[in-house]
Amino acid sequence: MFQSFTETARPEQGPPRLALLRRAMAEAGLVGYLVPRADAHQGEYVAACDDRLAWLTGFTGSAGICAVLGDVAGVFVDGRYRVQARAQVDTGHFTPVDFPETKPGAWLMQHLPGGGAVGFDPWLFTPEQLEDLTAALPEGIRLQPGPNLIDAIWPDRPAPPKGAIRAWPDDLAGMTHAEKRARLAEDLRASGTRAAVITLSDSLAWLLNIRGSDIPRNPVPQGFAILHDDGRVALFTDPAKLDEATRAHLGNEVSLATPDAFGPALDALKGPVRLDRKSVPVWVVERLDAGGVAHRWGEDPCVLPKAQKTEAEIKATRAAHLRDGAAVCEFLTWFDAQAPGTLTEIDVVTRLEACRAETGQLRDISFDTIAGSGPNGALPHYRVSEASNRRLIEGDLLVLDSGGQYLDGTTDITRTLPVGAPGREECAAFTRVLQGMIAISRLRFPRGLAGRDLDALARYPLWLADQDYGHGTGHGVGVYACVHEGPQRLSRVSDVPLAPGMILSNEPGYYREGAFGIRIENLIVVREAAPLKGGDGATHLDFETLTFAPIDRRLIARDMLSEAERLWLDTYHDACRDKIGPLLSKPARIWLDHATQPL
Amino acid sequence: MFQSFTETARPEQGPPRLALLRRAMAEAGLVGYLVPRADAHQGEYVAACDDRLAWLTGFTGSAGICAVLGDVAGVFVDGRYRVQARAQVDTGHFTPVDFPETKPGAWLMQHLPGGGAVGFDPWLFTPEQLEDLTAALPEGIRLQPGPNLIDAIWPDRPAPPKGAIRAWPDDLAGMTHAEKRARLAEDLRASGTRAAVITLSDSLAWLLNIRGSDIPRNPVPQGFAILHDDGRVALFTDPAKLDEATRAHLGNEVSLATPDAFGPALDALKGPVRLDRKSVPVWVVERLDAGGVAHRWGEDPCVLPKAQKTEAEIKATRAAHLRDGAAVCEFLTWFDAQAPGTLTEIDVVTRLEACRAETGQLRDISFDTIAGSGPNGALPHYRVSEASNRRLIEGDLLVLDSGGQYLDGTTDITRTLPVGAPGREECAAFTRVLQGMIAISRLRFPRGLAGRDLDALARYPLWLADQDYGHGTGHGVGVYACVHEGPQRLSRVSDVPLAPGMILSNEPGYYREGAFGIRIENLIVVREAAPLKGGDGATHLDFETLTFAPIDRRLIARDMLSEAERLWLDTYHDACRDKIGPLLSKPARIWLDHATQPL
Repeated sequence: MFQSFTETARPEQGPPRLALLRRAMAEAGLVGYLVPRADAHQGEYVAACDDRLAWLTGFTGSAGICAVLGDVAGVFVDGRYRVQARAQVDTGHFTPVDFPETKPGAWLMQHLPGGGAVGFDPWLFTPEQLEDLTAALPEGIRLQPGPNLIDAIWPDRPAPPKGAIRAWPDDLAGMTHAEKRARLAEDLRASGTRAAVITLSDSLAWLLNIRGSDIPRNPVPQGFAILHDDGRVALFTDPAKLDEATRAHLGNEVSLATPDAFGPALDALKGPVRLDRKSVPVWVVERLDAGGVAHRWGEDPCVLPKAQKTEAEIKATRAAHLRDGAAVCEFLTWFDAQAPGTLTEIDVVTRLEACRAETGQLRDISFDTIAGSGPNGALPHYRVSEASNRRLIEGDLLVLDSGGQYLDGTTDITRTLPVGAPGREECAAFTRVLQGMIAISRLRFPRGLAGRDLDALARYPLWLADQDYGHGTGHGVGVYACVHEGPQRLSRVSDVPLAPGMILSNEPGYYREGAFGIRIENLIVVREAAPLKGGDGATHLDFETLTFAPIDRRLIARDMLSEAERLWLDTYHDACRDKIGPLLSKPARIWLDHATQPL
Repeated sequence: MFQSFTETARPEQGPPRLALLRRAMAEAGLVGYLVPRADAHQGEYVAACDDRLAWLTGFTGSAGICAVLGDVAGVFVDGRYRVQARAQVDTGHFTPVDFPETKPGAWLMQHLPGGGAVGFDPWLFTPEQLEDLTAALPEGIRLQPGPNLIDAIWPDRPAPPKGAIRAWPDDLAGMTHAEKRARLAEDLRASGTRAAVITLSDSLAWLLNIRGSDIPRNPVPQGFAILHDDGRVALFTDPAKLDEATRAHLGNEVSLATPDAFGPALDALKGPVRLDRKSVPVWVVERLDAGGVAHRWGEDPCVLPKAQKTEAEIKATRAAHLRDGAAVCEFLTWFDAQAPGTLTEIDVVTRLEACRAETGQLRDISFDTIAGSGPNGALPHYRVSEASNRRLIEGDLLVLDSGGQYLDGTTDITRTLPVGAPGREECAAFTRVLQGMIAISRLRFPRGLAGRDLDALARYPLWLADQDYGHGTGHGVGVYACVHEGPQRLSRVSDVPLAPGMILSNEPGYYREGAFGIRIENLIVVREAAPLKGGDGATHLDFETLTFAPIDRRLIARDMLSEAERLWLDTYHDACRDKIGPLLSKPARIWLDHATQPL
């Protein structure tokens, strides 16, 4: 089983480690030190060796930074992690700070009136992050790059991961890595850039048609690469990760060396070199500057092409979604047969993973399953542990958000399930969430619009009832890659225009603190819409739905839906029956027939 | 009558004037000269003395710039004015250029390979505009401020306007100018700024509770002002515009001088002085720089407070809207009694203005009425002239967009009216436009959102049919001030968060070139919504509708509307009957009873 339910927080370990760090700071002449939840690849998840923030503070959330000074250690966490941070750190020694309400720069200014040098590891910060930090600082406080002080005091620090790297089949990718390299090299030449540095794991995976296993849930490899303007790539990662077949797949134009060789390779470059301010480590910039190699800021050249999936990738992920939908339906068949009061959240997670594993093709889950029942459902990012595990009782709603990693695709689906008879308010809110989710599913829109332009459409039915949800409507999703993949998002903060081939989640929700949560999520892919008769003639975009599994009709207040919304739902359920039915066991097929009856 | 129907374009006047300008350029050592459609107040409309672009080129649109070089004169116009510009200028001598597809900077670079000095009048450009222009220029081309060359060759150039300035009653404004000055002065002191320069006409009008008459349709005064951090204001405008009562209204803390005294007053300032990059003339910046007076960029301090109308202003404009709605209903009663084929567009405009004038309180129309029938309706900014005047025939739609200026408010209303029996496609598109307009009318939304976050809600029903409209959903509106007033907008280009008291238009449309146009427009005002039971508890915002006049039910495809949409429309029509009915003549009351029957 991939998921575990152990509670990893050990608040008592923090204070002695903090004392060690302060001694190291003093020896290095630093008045402060910054410990971010980050690695050199700016991944959402980090390897054990990079989990320095958790090692130091006990806080295990996926975003945060600890600013350690002589007499105070601020742990900056955002709204998702307020409660968790307070529970996981020793608040006698660590002070949780609300981010982004309080910015680290402003906080340093307040707590370091005498100024001084604050150390940081240049591998773990990007130029954009550093600029944000520095912009708020007075002249007396300077940020000073240097060796990682945590690594110096962490005796049993794990070794870097050595997860196997394997070729990802060209027929799934729809383009060979030679074609991709040639295309990007042409862009580099056109922009007068001699090389680009690539440090994002999913960019590496996309560029070379490879997948990795350094980080659970994220089948992408850690490493660094230099793409030259003639299409050659130098890849820097532990060579032991690659077998002979993978080396053959990479061929002669992709060289392989250890990460140690990355620095000297940077020294040898002729500029200008393209660097992405949003993702490259500051260390790379310093190394190029020290060697007199010119650089220019520009987006990682893999980011946009990667986001616009090929026809082959979309075909592949469609198949993964049908397989995954069938596993979900097998689970739902079982779940509906259990009486209220008999299951716990862990039972649910375990059974769901088993259903996916029974496909025989599950490589991993795409993230730790969120199974929040009753009040736990009101925490959008809830992860059940032995300590928090809760029994599902009559009247509960269960928010079940999960996904699978298959060779041909990454899935992410949320269904909200009633335990026994649902309440009236729950059904009304569920129906509003469904209306928002249907509004996005049915959307057709002109080219050039970004997530920010569309996000409100999913919220409108909730807004009319003074309800809302505190997260974006959707995130980008990879194909056998990261389940959170940029740059596109369906969100108020996203200015990236949506383009054909981009995969997004469509997941409005509603959360009533201490009571219940609701979320409904399908994955969708942007495509060129076939023009409608009577339209303006310009090509519009629309979304193809990838996810197929019934949406629970017992939670729908039928009268609240318009005819068009009812028609969408009935048509969607017809498609679930047609596409998923043939893949199911007999009991599940009977269940599906019932679950997909017209409203 | 306020509106006239004469065609002002005289293309043959352009070439000799162009020759004169080129001679003046040569004498001044300039290889180019920029003539914008602008005055020193960056108003949407300009006085006759400032209509230099029209004088030079013949083009009378409300936005554009002519870049005159030795052998070519580019006239930059946006999408609204492509057709008009080609009709109004002598294209043998002037070259229409598509803006913003082609930017003046890029165009200059292309046409001035040898470089040189391009002249401009620093009164007519803002620092933001100048920076946009300069950013695109190579080093060899420099923009050179200097005396206005058009004024030098325009023998019968009209004198600047001397429109009367009068006090606007404090009970309508809801705040005295002393209170406003004190509030703004406090903000200046808090930000460490000694004074602010105010050059926008509507800012002057708001700050001093005055109204003007320099420019038709825009009851705001032209002038400049310096607001000091002790609340005193120095106003620079022709003193002859003010009578004794108005001078008494301004009192001792507001000094009055001619515009000539503005420069010396700037010289005498102690900095830092707040200037708005988006509106202050470059001339002011140069003058301060020359005098060694420091400045800081910041928003014109009147802009945001002005946009958030007081309770008194909202109460005033409600009354203006009821009066105006009654005039519109009297018009509609008459219009519906005319047989197809009997009226022209000019007949419509004339009668509508007469109905408003019959209120006895019409100060002006708020803009030239748009009365576009049949294919003319497909031009969103159509203005009928003797030459374009068209007879309304069976099957036409008429787009009728108009408004009145009353002492207590500014109105802006669009109704689309069928002539005879409307077609099926017209009704379907009308219903979609209505759905979008209702979606905005019913909207409740969290604080902090801008026009960009909401604009899509009005387009969704059209988008589902591959239809759309090429303008924003709404613009800000003043109270007995400009009918286009910033900074708030319901538009994809607006990042200004909506706040209580802001008045906006809500005017989705649909335009089928060569066939018909549709637009429905009400004015709305942002308010704090009374919290709903079952909501999240946070205060949401919603819109109060200000405009009351029936929406033509003959154009509505009833089946396309949801129950909630039907309910909104019936409730709106009930309100029209209740609020407007008592103000009407007997025939109009009978008409209104019929026009407001439930769907």
